[in-house]
Amino acid sequence: MWRNWRHITKLDPDRKIPDEDLKTVATSGTDALLIGGTRGVTREKVVDLLERLKRFDVVKIQEPSNPANVVFEDIDYLFIPSILNSADPKWIVGLHAEWVRGLTLKHGSLPWDKIQGEAYIVLNPKSAVGIETKAKTDLSIEEACAYATCADRYMHFPIVYIEYSGTYGNPELVRAVRQSLSGSHLFYGGGIDSKEKAREMAKYSTIVVGNILYDDIEKFKQTLSYE
Amino acid sequence: MWRNWRHITKLDPDRKIPDEDLKTVATSGTDALLIGGTRGVTREKVVDLLERLKRFDVVKIQEPSNPANVVFEDIDYLFIPSILNSADPKWIVGLHAEWVRGLTLKHGSLPWDKIQGEAYIVLNPKSAVGIETKAKTDLSIEEACAYATCADRYMHFPIVYIEYSGTYGNPELVRAVRQSLSGSHLFYGGGIDSKEKAREMAKYSTIVVGNILYDDIEKFKQTLSYE
Repeated sequence: MWRNWRHITKLDPDRKIPDEDLKTVATSGTDALLIGGTRGVTREKVVDLLERLKRFDVVKIQEPSNPANVVFEDIDYLFIPSILNSADPKWIVGLHAEWVRGLTLKHGSLPWDKIQGEAYIVLNPKSAVGIETKAKTDLSIEEACAYATCADRYMHFPIVYIEYSGTYGNPELVRAVRQSLSGSHLFYGGGIDSKEKAREMAKYSTIVVGNILYDDIEKFKQTLSYE
Repeated sequence: MWRNWRHITKLDPDRKIPDEDLKTVATSGTDALLIGGTRGVTREKVVDLLERLKRFDVVKIQEPSNPANVVFEDIDYLFIPSILNSADPKWIVGLHAEWVRGLTLKHGSLPWDKIQGEAYIVLNPKSAVGIETKAKTDLSIEEACAYATCADRYMHFPIVYIEYSGTYGNPELVRAVRQSLSGSHLFYGGGIDSKEKAREMAKYSTIVVGNILYDDIEKFKQTLSYE
């Protein structure tokens, strides 16, 4: 059950990874592989990565940044992001409604048991996701908690995702958001490249580790040994 | 329990209603009074209406159109609308986050057991709510169902509200939306001014009756005798 996961690894279909590193990641003990990226992701690249991962017995989640890239085969879950602090409603619910309409017309219905909604709060203005979604990233701790509370107690999203994409975030903010949540589960992503950072954010959230595996696979392994 | 309600009456604090008519409404057998309006509503007008309703033993819900008007006293529920098909994210989650932040700073926490989120799909372009929230109202049946499905299976809103405000809607659309829902409860509002219209929309939804009570209280009473 995804609520018990402690460590997730994010794989970007647009980035190259040698077979050896892919094996290291898939057999590392990470609880799940989250396959998604903001830019340059195509359906072909997603399918190709899934094909390479087929032989590994690890949970695979697709996190599409665009309805066009959605894949149902060879995945265990689809985690779909809504960017709650976006200035453009298409990133909150607009693309999602288009996607549901298109796929319902095509398939009759969707595999809702595989799908979980993620309420993203994007906090790095320089990240691709921050720029692309026109996110209002200059949130105070209280404002971030307010968005999280809306996701949790008002909308009832299963997952709240604090996304500092590419930079290490403010642990005080992550702690405060965690304390404000009632039913939603907290994910944290951004800048985890050491045992210490992994340990700190894992106190409050399920951590999502990404970039470091492309830069230094040994450092990636350390993010798993924080406990 | 609000999920069992069949007939709700909407009272607009900005509209005048004689004591006699107010009594007729409050003792009519309607399941609940939903107090809210889009324009000209002030906190004073809400408090005044609630004061006049105090002597009636009927469920009272406030549906604030603006955080500034929220009242916690003398009400049983707060139903908070999100306009899913708005072009401006402030009507989806922005005002809500401001409201949560402001009230949390003031009161420490909010009475979440009284609060239910409503995922509005606004379909009358000429209505005050349609204009005010810049709603994309020209939705096909499939598009309306897609928004409803996002509210229901993705975000998990307890209530989906098809709002034709001021005009009678398309029963085929309401039927299709109802059939697409899994966990969310459906409200329908707009143009119900007769037994026949009440009966038709009540097949698929909890009906919300509003304007007619200000124009013709006898016709309002007929909307209750459709069964």
